[in-house]
Amino acid sequence: MRKEPLHIIKIGGNVINDEASLSEFLKDFVYLSGKKILVHGGGKKASELLKSIGIEPKMVGGRRITDQATLEVVTMVYAGLINKNIVAQLQQNNCNAIGLSGADGNSIKAHKRIVKDIDYGFAGDVDVVENKTFKVLLNNGLTPVLCAITHDKKGQLLNTNADTITSEVATALSKDYEVTITYCFEKKGVLTDINNDDSVIEKIDTEKYKSLKNDGIINDGMLPKLENCFYALNKGVSKIIIGHPAVIANTNQLCTTLTL
Amino acid sequence: MRKEPLHIIKIGGNVINDEASLSEFLKDFVYLSGKKILVHGGGKKASELLKSIGIEPKMVGGRRITDQATLEVVTMVYAGLINKNIVAQLQQNNCNAIGLSGADGNSIKAHKRIVKDIDYGFAGDVDVVENKTFKVLLNNGLTPVLCAITHDKKGQLLNTNADTITSEVATALSKDYEVTITYCFEKKGVLTDINNDDSVIEKIDTEKYKSLKNDGIINDGMLPKLENCFYALNKGVSKIIIGHPAVIANTNQLCTTLTL
Repeated sequence: MRKEPLHIIKIGGNVINDEASLSEFLKDFVYLSGKKILVHGGGKKASELLKSIGIEPKMVGGRRITDQATLEVVTMVYAGLINKNIVAQLQQNNCNAIGLSGADGNSIKAHKRIVKDIDYGFAGDVDVVENKTFKVLLNNGLTPVLCAITHDKKGQLLNTNADTITSEVATALSKDYEVTITYCFEKKGVLTDINNDDSVIEKIDTEKYKSLKNDGIINDGMLPKLENCFYALNKGVSKIIIGHPAVIANTNQLCTTLTL
Repeated sequence: MRKEPLHIIKIGGNVINDEASLSEFLKDFVYLSGKKILVHGGGKKASELLKSIGIEPKMVGGRRITDQATLEVVTMVYAGLINKNIVAQLQQNNCNAIGLSGADGNSIKAHKRIVKDIDYGFAGDVDVVENKTFKVLLNNGLTPVLCAITHDKKGQLLNTNADTITSEVATALSKDYEVTITYCFEKKGVLTDINNDDSVIEKIDTEKYKSLKNDGIINDGMLPKLENCFYALNKGVSKIIIGHPAVIANTNQLCTTLTL
């Protein structure tokens, strides 16, 4: 029997930072038919709030070092301000959204990242996704909206990368659904030429990915993202789309589609 | 047919402000058997954060004046920091909690308070409680944890009194459940003598309430709370307990019980 389709959409800081872009995206998201989950990143608001209370944000290789004060701020901004504003806007558009951190319904259990070279502090690496929680919500017409906060089931909240949350939730739920992930970002897809926004590679499968890597066409920033994508595809996710948020509403929109 | 019991517990700032008290209360809450909902107030953290970003908290008659910046802060603190920390601690104690604002699952729709003498800003007065959302969660073993933020279904979040949320949710759900509300606060119950913590009035019904009012025994701070309680009892709530948080675990604990 064919599994029921499930769309998991991830939006990042660039969409969240701009009120008009976010509002436009959310209207498109509502019109996406069938079961769906939204995962959102953090945007610049957390860093702004940290600075305004006198804490200098610390990043290493694009990842935030999360001390106790920083954890409080990201919990407030991601799980509070951003998550609830997205949920309220979706409700306005008649999408019955429900905001979740990984602690809610024990939906995503993680552990504090083991210290190797760098101590990332209260950063979480995902252990288990609780399919039952997502299925209860989805089967009752609710649309989960996930922020990038998880917990360790020992009372500790953890700051967790939103791309990782997306692929972990997607691979877990691919046991029950035919999952498509859409990663929305500022470009139209994976580009052969970083300076040419229209140089989108429309289809990448495992073979094509190998040759793109060998030829050095994929840039450093995109490489870990694509590794993560092929990991998810190998673990059961059906299809991954990388593109501009407009791809949600417009199926003719140029984008990159990844399959095995 | 007798309806299934449902306990709705409200905790205020005094429990939330002290980590040890909160942790102790949550452990007791977990052992309360049957279906249950927790409603939490805000505590002093919102005012502290407001001051640290240079905004002076504005209160009139114990109620917060909520301008745009204040709304952002209370959304962050109530729906983010406090709500997610409570949920994580309940999960630690094997209570499958799920944190909600009124926007989540459209659980509580409100409207921006009409300006009469005072403009309270983005303060919400409750219109509709969505029983279906609560029933779906409760019937699937989830324990809703409500913060004092609602929405107007037009994309606007609203700061809403936690006592009001408690009584509105309780009266709505009394259609489907036999609801007991427990209001936890720093005293052991309604006192005949404010300076004597043991002068608890153990039972108050409608007749007794009238005579206490006529005799001027109930003080000004308690009067609106009790009005609110009898309103809820008249609208279908079965029983209301007012007392120290310890009343949750210890049925022999001195407290005030209100019935019609």
